[in-house]
Amino acid sequence: MNIDRIRAAAARLQGHVRTTPLLHSDALDLIAGRRVWVKAECLQHTGSFKFRGGWSAISALPDEVRKRGIIAFSSGNHAQGVALAARAHGAPCVIIMPADAPAVKIANTRAFGAEVVLYDRATEDRDAIGAALSAERGLTLVKPFDHPEVIAGQGTCGLEIAAQAAAQGITKADVLICCGGGGLTSGIALALEADAPGLTPRPVEPEGFDDVTRSLISGKRERNAATTGSICDAIITPTPGELTFPIMQRLCGSGLVVTESEVLNAMRAAFEHLRIIVEPGGAVALAAALYHPDEIAGEDVIAVTTGGNVDADFYAMMLNETA
Amino acid sequence: MNIDRIRAAAARLQGHVRTTPLLHSDALDLIAGRRVWVKAECLQHTGSFKFRGGWSAISALPDEVRKRGIIAFSSGNHAQGVALAARAHGAPCVIIMPADAPAVKIANTRAFGAEVVLYDRATEDRDAIGAALSAERGLTLVKPFDHPEVIAGQGTCGLEIAAQAAAQGITKADVLICCGGGGLTSGIALALEADAPGLTPRPVEPEGFDDVTRSLISGKRERNAATTGSICDAIITPTPGELTFPIMQRLCGSGLVVTESEVLNAMRAAFEHLRIIVEPGGAVALAAALYHPDEIAGEDVIAVTTGGNVDADFYAMMLNETA
Repeated sequence: MNIDRIRAAAARLQGHVRTTPLLHSDALDLIAGRRVWVKAECLQHTGSFKFRGGWSAISALPDEVRKRGIIAFSSGNHAQGVALAARAHGAPCVIIMPADAPAVKIANTRAFGAEVVLYDRATEDRDAIGAALSAERGLTLVKPFDHPEVIAGQGTCGLEIAAQAAAQGITKADVLICCGGGGLTSGIALALEADAPGLTPRPVEPEGFDDVTRSLISGKRERNAATTGSICDAIITPTPGELTFPIMQRLCGSGLVVTESEVLNAMRAAFEHLRIIVEPGGAVALAAALYHPDEIAGEDVIAVTTGGNVDADFYAMMLNETA
Repeated sequence: MNIDRIRAAAARLQGHVRTTPLLHSDALDLIAGRRVWVKAECLQHTGSFKFRGGWSAISALPDEVRKRGIIAFSSGNHAQGVALAARAHGAPCVIIMPADAPAVKIANTRAFGAEVVLYDRATEDRDAIGAALSAERGLTLVKPFDHPEVIAGQGTCGLEIAAQAAAQGITKADVLICCGGGGLTSGIALALEADAPGLTPRPVEPEGFDDVTRSLISGKRERNAATTGSICDAIITPTPGELTFPIMQRLCGSGLVVTESEVLNAMRAAFEHLRIIVEPGGAVALAAALYHPDEIAGEDVIAVTTGGNVDADFYAMMLNETA
């Protein structure tokens, strides 16, 4: 992995990806005690940064491979990003989803033109189902983070951050990134290393699911005790990626860990002061920027709000329970 | 009023205003039956386009006038836009607000540094209060729409629409604009006339408060029967402006009128598919784009979502009552 691969992905994404805005609000500065900049990736196509990696991976395939089709495993944002990117390329797309995934996510993935294959988490092996379909149809697997072209695609978000920060005169700041497997974090880290070396990427995770933070401390890939039970479903992965971890280890500052209550308050702050919808997993970085000021250095902080795919019921609950 | 004044306002706003994105979603296209583009002005500073007009008017004043101070009458978005623009110019700012305005709007206006003077709608005359303060302190009044520099500032939104539409290859489309007194509508109309003559500005209003639509039909300034009683508080004005109406008459297509139920569903659609917060008065144009397809011409339609300042309780109610 290197910056050339990210620049090549950016060239393929040109005209298809949305350059998401870097938002600012005085009210958030008052809460945080420094200037807060929000990279609103929840405004990306399909509502999350995952569209970047999906497009990058699919556009990098040879024509004859791509036209046989794409397969991905996901119950959430990766599913939608890959499905829309595949449809735009005219490639057939199969998404393997658990049968108990939220109905709205299954519906959205189908709406983007994908064939959704459901499996029973308790009795069926999703990898075996995927392998059989791939062999039969010649499908190409697009992994959610441990995939060079996916990392390169997510890295294009980092190129935008570097340019937007420079335009605001920001040369030194922590860049807080909601982190699951590390595809976005490692991609942004590589982009900043090349284009904005004064910006320091730092992963942010929810309490109890801080595998990346602990791995950066211990120097080896730690695992989470649980794989479910967080409101931040979009960024819950068991352990950092094989490809992504060495990149994060080389380039990232220390991780930050936030509580669920801080996540809900950050979602509310984004509602009040930025007028953007942020999902729980997409709000952990903003939560750290607002509520962990002592763990951050400098006059400016940049937080990436990575996704906005949240159920209306949950969002209404958040509005009712925060103030 | 002419395009030069809008270009001059754009030059003064450069580096201070946010170029808001022109968003798109396949899901909205399916609802509308054509391509829908959303100019997300709810992402503007202070959460509405009003910041443009406030900045334009205040930045156009001679230094010695500006430093004596600014005054405005508003219970909502104009108050916040003027207050922030005044603070950025180091100008004292008084906002006259009704004592029964939502507490959150009073608090926000104060947070932007304005001195808020409350009056009792039933027993006090706000114009007399404003006139007395203005005379005593030498304050300059910034009207919400019937003011050339305010119209010029709102027109900068139209310059952005023209450029963004051209970048998407859109040369012919209706541009639907949430319309109160007509400051934004007339400003956009002048900008489009100059930079995108194939784009047709059209005002959109809520049922029962369709003074502009009726005025465009009759050829004279009609009045609404009521001045309260709509969820679309941000765009309820008794009659079109003296300055704005002749511009709208010369340049606008016919008006569109939407129901409150359509407004709520448009707010929900923006939540689901664009991840932006839109207030009721800021959603009427999107409602027309989505639910009045037979009244619109062409393959593309552009809807301006003009504001996002909505109370959390109302927003949660909207999410609970729509699907």
